[in-house]
Amino acid sequence: MYPKTIKDLIDCFKKLPGIGEKTAERLALSLFALDDEVILNFSSSIKNLKSNIKRCKKCHNFTEGDLCSICLDESREKSVICVVEEPKNVVLFEKMGTYNGLYHVLDGLISPLDGINPEDINIKSLIDRIEKDKIKEVILAVRPTIEGETTALYISKLLNKTGVKITKIAHGIPLGADMEYIDALTLELALENRTEI
Amino acid sequence: MYPKTIKDLIDCFKKLPGIGEKTAERLALSLFALDDEVILNFSSSIKNLKSNIKRCKKCHNFTEGDLCSICLDESREKSVICVVEEPKNVVLFEKMGTYNGLYHVLDGLISPLDGINPEDINIKSLIDRIEKDKIKEVILAVRPTIEGETTALYISKLLNKTGVKITKIAHGIPLGADMEYIDALTLELALENRTEI
Repeated sequence: MYPKTIKDLIDCFKKLPGIGEKTAERLALSLFALDDEVILNFSSSIKNLKSNIKRCKKCHNFTEGDLCSICLDESREKSVICVVEEPKNVVLFEKMGTYNGLYHVLDGLISPLDGINPEDINIKSLIDRIEKDKIKEVILAVRPTIEGETTALYISKLLNKTGVKITKIAHGIPLGADMEYIDALTLELALENRTEI
Repeated sequence: MYPKTIKDLIDCFKKLPGIGEKTAERLALSLFALDDEVILNFSSSIKNLKSNIKRCKKCHNFTEGDLCSICLDESREKSVICVVEEPKNVVLFEKMGTYNGLYHVLDGLISPLDGINPEDINIKSLIDRIEKDKIKEVILAVRPTIEGETTALYISKLLNKTGVKITKIAHGIPLGADMEYIDALTLELALENRTEI
C-alpha cells in the first residue's frame, strides 16, 4: 500500500522487539515530522552502531575505544568487581550512583538447555582479572533465575580456591511493594536473610 | 553512561512518539542483534525517507513518482473521490479492499484554534479536481471530531453549487462493541441513522 521506502522502513521497525505492524507504521510516518538534521543523525547512528561500538578489553562493557570509561577512570576502587549479565546492567548500577568499583560483563548466563556453557560467556577473563589485578571482592549481581543462580554458583566455586571475597546482592522484598503480591520463594529468602534493626 | 554512538541513537529513538527513555534504550540495544544488511537498510530507509517520498500531484497521497499508484491505476473508478485527512487513512481504506474509487488527502483538518484555516489544507485542489475530472460523488471520510465535522461542513458547502453528490461515511456503533460503553452522542447518531431491515 505504501511506496517502497516507507514499506522498507516499516519492515525495519517491525524487526525491533515489541514493535508490531501498527506501531511500526506510526513510528515510520512520524519521521516525516523530524528535522533533517535529526534524520541524518538517526540514520548514521544506526549505520555506525556496530562498527563504532566495541567491547572493553578488560570488562567487556560497551566502549568506543580499547577500554571503557569506567576501567579508565583513575578514581574508581580497583579491587572490587561487580559481575553483571549485560552492558545495560552496568548503566543501571551507574545510574544508582553509589557503587564505585569496577564491573565485569558476562554477556550471558550459563544455560545448558539453550546450549550456553561456561566457556561461552566471559568467565575465563574474569578469573584472569582476579588473579592479575589483586581483586579483593567479587560481587555477583546476576538476575535471580535458575540461569543466574547456576552462573553465580559456578563462578563462586571457581573462585573459592583464590581466597577472594565473594558476595551476592541481596534478594528480598522490593521497597514499596505490596506484600500480598510477593511470591512465596521471595518471602522465604527475605525471612532467611533478615537483618537486625 | 553509554558511549556516544549509543547515547545518540537512544536520543533519536526518544524523539519518536510514545517512546520513553527505557523503550529507547531497549530499541537501541536491540539493533546489535540485527544482521548488518538489515542495519544498512534501516539506516538508508531513514535517510532517504524525506527525499524519496513525495506527494501525488493529484491526490496528495504518498508516492515516489509524480502520481501515486492509485491515481495511475486504470482499473479504478475515476468519478468517485474519497476525502481523507492523512495518507495513512488511504492505506486503511485500501486494506479494507472493497473501495475502488480515488482519494484526496487533505493533510489536516480545519481548526481555527490551532491556526489551521481552509487555505492551509488541500481543499482548493479538491475543488479543482471535481470541476476538471467530471467527479460524480465525493465521500467525506474524516474523523468524527469538531475539526472533522467543521471540515466536512465547509467542503460540502463549497461543493453544493457544483451539483456533485456529497456523502459522508456512517457513524454508529462499531461491530463487536459492548453497548454499555457507547457514548450518548454515538448512540443518538446510531438511532437517528437507523436503517430498515
